[in-house]
Amino acid sequence: MHRFFVPDLPHQGALVALSDEETRHLTQVLRLELGDEVQVFDGHGRQHSARVEVAARQRAEVRVGPVAHAAPEARVAITLAAALLKGDKFDDVVRDAAMLGVAAICPLVTARTEVPAARLGKVTRVDRWKRVVLSSVKQCGRAVIPDVGEPETLAVALARLPRPLIALAEPSLAAPASALPATSSSATVLVGPEGGWAPAEVDALIEAGAILFSLGGRTLRADAAPLVALTALLWEWKAL
Amino acid sequence: MHRFFVPDLPHQGALVALSDEETRHLTQVLRLELGDEVQVFDGHGRQHSARVEVAARQRAEVRVGPVAHAAPEARVAITLAAALLKGDKFDDVVRDAAMLGVAAICPLVTARTEVPAARLGKVTRVDRWKRVVLSSVKQCGRAVIPDVGEPETLAVALARLPRPLIALAEPSLAAPASALPATSSSATVLVGPEGGWAPAEVDALIEAGAILFSLGGRTLRADAAPLVALTALLWEWKAL
Repeated sequence: MHRFFVPDLPHQGALVALSDEETRHLTQVLRLELGDEVQVFDGHGRQHSARVEVAARQRAEVRVGPVAHAAPEARVAITLAAALLKGDKFDDVVRDAAMLGVAAICPLVTARTEVPAARLGKVTRVDRWKRVVLSSVKQCGRAVIPDVGEPETLAVALARLPRPLIALAEPSLAAPASALPATSSSATVLVGPEGGWAPAEVDALIEAGAILFSLGGRTLRADAAPLVALTALLWEWKAL
Repeated sequence: MHRFFVPDLPHQGALVALSDEETRHLTQVLRLELGDEVQVFDGHGRQHSARVEVAARQRAEVRVGPVAHAAPEARVAITLAAALLKGDKFDDVVRDAAMLGVAAICPLVTARTEVPAARLGKVTRVDRWKRVVLSSVKQCGRAVIPDVGEPETLAVALARLPRPLIALAEPSLAAPASALPATSSSATVLVGPEGGWAPAEVDALIEAGAILFSLGGRTLRADAAPLVALTALLWEWKAL
């Protein structure tokens, strides 16, 4: 079933126009036609079935039907705070995090983050990640769109990120898995860059109360580490 | 530290020539020189430090030094039996599985596998996966190279795959996580194709004694599902 994002989703029975981007997707990519059944969701967990009533090149409208079941959310609202990566690798990080069910994504600028400063300030970058997140949300069946923040330094982020803080670290620094906090309603998972956390960052994490944990002795690719860390913790908390 | 694969690794003190592929890597990609320190491993867990003694365009030789620490293996020898995927996506599956520490990879041909038959018989495909695995092993620090088999049908594979069998399935089919077997020395994790297992395959899995488990209600991308499944089980077994 094709799903479309409608931020201000009206009540059942109403006719609603899709955004330009969703219109393009409906009419030009999927080539849906009058009468086709679809689903619409508001990004905050509401989802309804709907029927296409206008499918012109520049304009798509759907009639909102009854409430439709969406994929369940993870049982712990996890914020992923992950260091930016070179090239387009962070796109994969946000895509996979959205698929696994995170509540929010906080891109981190760390001491060893190797991303040109010129790229950091650009709003377009965050916009791009938001599009990646939306596409992943549509694929995985969620009706909730995780928030993607502007890149922040670790120091700024540590002051505000939801507790408990759980940071991926080298095995030599990590507490045993038994030190992980029991399930809570929310948590933040922090993952460093290719080169790992700098020593001062490890100190800052510990000072902020973060539990350091490890994923074994093999070196994980930086773009896969967030997915592996999120999976391990969601599994640990029976929250998948 | 740069690492090179030497299948017939001699004892300490011996001089050994690298394969053509590893020679190219050493001399042309990494441009290492006489006297540079490297590591050599045999793919079965032995690893030694070594020093470059010949670094010509067509020929690289290293002097084998003392035993060197390699990344520890996963504490459960997992065989990943995963359905082939379209395009190059299976490359990512074998790459990630090698990184996480599987012992072997069995490419499966299932009822809903959408891979052109023309591609299946080709030895080159398995050779390609072996190269991907080697590259991933070198990156993640393992000294063990997981085996990659020829593609097999599910029926043939089920007859020989190491027990217990644990198959990823839709949440509606899955046993509770508490039904997962306790740690054993080996296990097989089975993951279906984009379209999931066919009903007859689910029956065959159950008949073969497989435990069906799920990773929650969100739809995972087919190329990410093996990584997520392996992580969850390695974490469950404290085997990472």
